Amino acid sequence: MQKDQLLERLDRLERQLYAYRYAMGLMEYDSETAAPLLSAAGRGEALALLSEVEYRLTAGPETAELLAALEQIAPALTVQQAAQLRELQKAYDRNSKVPQEEYTAYSRLLTLAQPAWRQAKQNDDFDAFAPYLRQIVETNIRFAGYYAPGRDPYDTWLDQYEPGMTRAQLDEFFEALRREIVPLVQRITAEGASIDDRWAVQGDWPLEGQKQLARRVMDRMGIDPARCALGETEHPFTTNFSRDDVRITTHYYPENLLSSLYSVIHEGGHALYELNTAPRLAGTCLATGASMGMHESQSRLYENLIGRSRAFADVLWQDITACFPAQTAGRTAEDFWKAANKAQPSLIRTEADELTYCLHIMVRYELEKQLFDRTLTVEELPAAWNARMEEYLGVKVPNNAQGVLQDVHWAGGSFGYFPSYALGSAYGAQILDAMRRQLDVDALTARGELAPITAWLTDRIYQYGAERTPAWLLENACGAPFDPTFYTRYLKEKFTALYGLG
Amino acid sequence: MQKDQLLERLDRLERQLYAYRYAMGLMEYDSETAAPLLSAAGRGEALALLSEVEYRLTAGPETAELLAALEQIAPALTVQQAAQLRELQKAYDRNSKVPQEEYTAYSRLLTLAQPAWRQAKQNDDFDAFAPYLRQIVETNIRFAGYYAPGRDPYDTWLDQYEPGMTRAQLDEFFEALRREIVPLVQRITAEGASIDDRWAVQGDWPLEGQKQLARRVMDRMGIDPARCALGETEHPFTTNFSRDDVRITTHYYPENLLSSLYSVIHEGGHALYELNTAPRLAGTCLATGASMGMHESQSRLYENLIGRSRAFADVLWQDITACFPAQTAGRTAEDFWKAANKAQPSLIRTEADELTYCLHIMVRYELEKQLFDRTLTVEELPAAWNARMEEYLGVKVPNNAQGVLQDVHWAGGSFGYFPSYALGSAYGAQILDAMRRQLDVDALTARGELAPITAWLTDRIYQYGAERTPAWLLENACGAPFDPTFYTRYLKEKFTALYGLG
Repeated sequence: MQKDQLLERLDRLERQLYAYRYAMGLMEYDSETAAPLLSAAGRGEALALLSEVEYRLTAGPETAELLAALEQIAPALTVQQAAQLRELQKAYDRNSKVPQEEYTAYSRLLTLAQPAWRQAKQNDDFDAFAPYLRQIVETNIRFAGYYAPGRDPYDTWLDQYEPGMTRAQLDEFFEALRREIVPLVQRITAEGASIDDRWAVQGDWPLEGQKQLARRVMDRMGIDPARCALGETEHPFTTNFSRDDVRITTHYYPENLLSSLYSVIHEGGHALYELNTAPRLAGTCLATGASMGMHESQSRLYENLIGRSRAFADVLWQDITACFPAQTAGRTAEDFWKAANKAQPSLIRTEADELTYCLHIMVRYELEKQLFDRTLTVEELPAAWNARMEEYLGVKVPNNAQGVLQDVHWAGGSFGYFPSYALGSAYGAQILDAMRRQLDVDALTARGELAPITAWLTDRIYQYGAERTPAWLLENACGAPFDPTFYTRYLKEKFTALYGLG
Repeated sequence: MQKDQLLERLDRLERQLYAYRYAMGLMEYDSETAAPLLSAAGRGEALALLSEVEYRLTAGPETAELLAALEQIAPALTVQQAAQLRELQKAYDRNSKVPQEEYTAYSRLLTLAQPAWRQAKQNDDFDAFAPYLRQIVETNIRFAGYYAPGRDPYDTWLDQYEPGMTRAQLDEFFEALRREIVPLVQRITAEGASIDDRWAVQGDWPLEGQKQLARRVMDRMGIDPARCALGETEHPFTTNFSRDDVRITTHYYPENLLSSLYSVIHEGGHALYELNTAPRLAGTCLATGASMGMHESQSRLYENLIGRSRAFADVLWQDITACFPAQTAGRTAEDFWKAANKAQPSLIRTEADELTYCLHIMVRYELEKQLFDRTLTVEELPAAWNARMEEYLGVKVPNNAQGVLQDVHWAGGSFGYFPSYALGSAYGAQILDAMRRQLDVDALTARGELAPITAWLTDRIYQYGAERTPAWLLENACGAPFDPTFYTRYLKEKFTALYGLG
């Protein structure tokens, strides 16, 4: 077949995948935002049919033939076309290498595992969930063997979420956290000044004001409401249908000023990434972020590195006092900054602060590795969890519901996914350091001028979407490969000062 | 092919159509409720691809073959299967009888006509829109010839929206309105008591209270929030994805109590129809209302015949005073009932009251008929519009923006659609009369017990979905064919009493 014909078929395939993924993504979004409770069965029917078509499009014989033909002319492809081929090949491999009946059995297992996990968590009954978890781990190890025979299975799963990432790199990363952050948390617990955040998280913050504040903050971030809508859901998230159609959500708690505020900044960071991919990528599988970790680097950069900085606290405080003149009387930007940064070891990952969050991830990383190595059994998991929580965070886990059963991820079959949460923060710190060498970030932040920051990130990262690998993007932005010490240094400096540890 | 195989293929086709229509319907719904402004282009890409597949499914050669084979075994089909075949055949005819290039040209014309109409309305410039309208009318006449060669083209279009309906029946219907309602409106204008509705429509009705009221009213109507969600849009509407997933929307105006309240009851009537189609129809093209007119009969029955009745006004007033204790002080249920029923000739259809609404439809019906007869040219349309408005409603049309250009329907190619709005009210009056012979509707309404009313309607109409024709359903519910005099009698009795015309 001629090159032109192949490229036309590639284009057609991309347009089909775009349409089906749009439809299925919208059904998921709608189910979280607007759909009534009992809509699930009817939506399930439609999703099943559309995903059947999408499966054929990604893994069918026509696509196999197209990808093979494109591979033949690979040297003649543009960088973008080659990246499209790479991503489509990856999806093909993921969908075609597992025997159909095993894939179906696994889908069924996950469908049963999720309510079983929910029930087990509710009853604090790990044993009821253990048989599911055992099967999920075994299946993941077996599937990894199909994807990459002979390769370390955990590396294979890491690579699914963070292309190119390996245990070797992560071991080094988490080793740095253990060495630097564990003692820092211990020092803060033992000798840190006390911070009052009750006024901010157990106050009276009417929803109308919180909604106004969210709008102001999105404006500050340069998020165009004509291209990005803000909705309300149980748990905040970001999704996107095109570069001109991004959706972020938040959850307003009437007693808590910080929760919704920082979730909007967090999801806003994800949104800025999606809103600024290059128009040339529109409609292709490249019109999205490069990886879980790279995406999380942007949400955390805005949420924590900028959003919780002392300079930006002054800016946010102006908005907060404008929206809540009565509630903020007698408080200062300094009080707000401290409340927003209070660090305290705790049991639940999703409620953890900027400093201790990465240690929650470390617990999960180490346990996942061991499960996949078979140096830890599912039976031994709760005890191992509790021991590590005590070692790294100094907290005693009172029960499995607040311990090993707290997250939905494992019940959903996601192993190798957690590390990207911590990696994101580390990428973010390294990227910010590089940015500081070219922009006066503190001065810009203090004036609330985020546009030059977003432009810098667009130029070096966002525009490329998923065309380039995370490693390439990091090198492109920072001029150096991934180095976790920027992150540990950042955390040490910030929290040593905040807690007056001199 | 064996019957079993054919039925399996029928089932497969229905499931496919269900999934694609679900996806496309959700995109439309999302575009009205949640999507950001600039999402249109990206959504358009996805819609184009999915509708291309849906077109092939409804009008492709495989479907043609399947429908022909099913027709061969028609006597062996169940009533439901025969109705599925009938509906699929109708969609096939609609999509396959027009030559593809004419269909494409018409789609392009409509795409251009809508913004042209919007602009023309804004500038009060009918001449700018006239060329589009001329082409649209001509195309509709030509297409009607493809659908049913030799048949009156306007009858063909009426049949698209209201299966079985003809000019002959509608002429009789509108003749009754002209004879009975036009003089009644004249009497009210000349000698009717004056009704004060300013407190209700130009007051201060905070949105929180209106939202609470909407929830209460949906509860009263027996609309399960787990199966029907209420959203906010510019213009209220109802859509459905399954019998367990119906969406209604409303628009809250802070100064107007009545607008949102009655739009919720109206859309709630549509919703009850969809929520009560039989489970056996789920996933087929029959799981929806029988026709535009039959659907409108249910929304108007709840909105006007029940919702604006004196008995139900007492019930609603309890809810209103509970939600707005301050705003309702010194007012009575009687005041509310009168305000909700104020009748006054006006220029704009969508703002018309229960009594004069049908006369707005009569104007459109007569003009559409003449355009299709070619007894009226597009050039003559504005003058003909203005003359009828004065004759039927006694109002002078000051400009075309508030006259012939007010509705989007013609710019969207909808001819023969308007009559279903008025027909719905007439069906509703006849159905209510039949119901009264078996249920003490006034007593139930006065106690706010709507469940037996909905059950009666479910038993006779809702459960059948689109399996039966509107005429069959009306006969089934009323034991007699359509008779417009129930409607004219109802209007005369109600408004003569309301306006003290003795």
